[in-house]
Amino acid sequence: MTAADPRFPEIRIACPDWMPDFVGVDRPYSSDDARMRLAIGLARENVDRGTGGPFGAAVFEVDSGRLVGAGVNMVVPARNAVLHAEIVAFMMAQQRVGAYSLAAGQLPAHELFTSCEPCAMCLGATLWSGVGRVVWAATREDANRIAFDEGPVFPSSYEYLRQRGIEFRGGLLRDEGRAVLERYQRAGGDIYNG
Amino acid sequence: MTAADPRFPEIRIACPDWMPDFVGVDRPYSSDDARMRLAIGLARENVDRGTGGPFGAAVFEVDSGRLVGAGVNMVVPARNAVLHAEIVAFMMAQQRVGAYSLAAGQLPAHELFTSCEPCAMCLGATLWSGVGRVVWAATREDANRIAFDEGPVFPSSYEYLRQRGIEFRGGLLRDEGRAVLERYQRAGGDIYNG
Repeated sequence: MTAADPRFPEIRIACPDWMPDFVGVDRPYSSDDARMRLAIGLARENVDRGTGGPFGAAVFEVDSGRLVGAGVNMVVPARNAVLHAEIVAFMMAQQRVGAYSLAAGQLPAHELFTSCEPCAMCLGATLWSGVGRVVWAATREDANRIAFDEGPVFPSSYEYLRQRGIEFRGGLLRDEGRAVLERYQRAGGDIYNG
Repeated sequence: MTAADPRFPEIRIACPDWMPDFVGVDRPYSSDDARMRLAIGLARENVDRGTGGPFGAAVFEVDSGRLVGAGVNMVVPARNAVLHAEIVAFMMAQQRVGAYSLAAGQLPAHELFTSCEPCAMCLGATLWSGVGRVVWAATREDANRIAFDEGPVFPSSYEYLRQRGIEFRGGLLRDEGRAVLERYQRAGGDIYNG
């Protein structure tokens, strides 16, 4: 038997076609606000294009502001519950730097910006990703309000990651992040984990 | 720009070449022990073949015992921190049934067997996966003993999932699961999230 055995299909994860043009030419993202606007912009575009859930995320080098990975939620179109925006952004970033940890060897420090507070799965992935900082816009409560479940995340979860050197900043441009969630709800988008 | 933009690489996830032959011809796995022996066997083979960390997982239909998805840890060879055995097994299973939830529509009930207690990321993924039951062999303490971190998982995390209808059975064939961890340690395997 070979890798073509249908019981063990190859999984292919590709960003939506619109993403490269949407992000445009590489440039440094010089502030927290600029980095968050990209994450929120990805979320909004994902809703407007109908290519997934109302979530976007991006990984940056902290000091240079270079974009290293980006992702949008692709759960429904890819039929894959793992493909939250943060997971996609981590996978892209790790593939691009060629290491399973963004804190590996000679790499500069990295951070994650996400349009909404990470769910339990993505918070766990954050710990393994090697990013040293996580910034989000909309909060868990905002996601709950449109019936998205965020899973078992507690104050002690954040404390666990903090003790391992990860910093958090929540609620940056919260209104803009929340507006994307409401836009999705108005559009009648699937709540795939409600 | 196209999907070939190097900033947004396609991610391809393929099981190790040995997996189809190792699993062999499809047959029902008629008991918890039989299902767990497959998960532990995958973990052991992954260590012996040098294709990743000491963890294996498989998704089954509860009633028929049909194998629906299988995975091994591929973090180091794939340079991808997300690719724990459980995540790979969920992705494979969801691709195979063609739905992002294994609890979708007309599907029969599914369950996850894993050679070691799930980490925080994988426990979160469990909630989104649609499986109704999780069974593991080696425990969090066994993983910790060889310096693998399991992340922020608390009694309240399990309670959260139980309230959403997910059942747990820990420590089934624990000695066999733990033996694979110790085998990996003796072989000098990378502790990639210690």
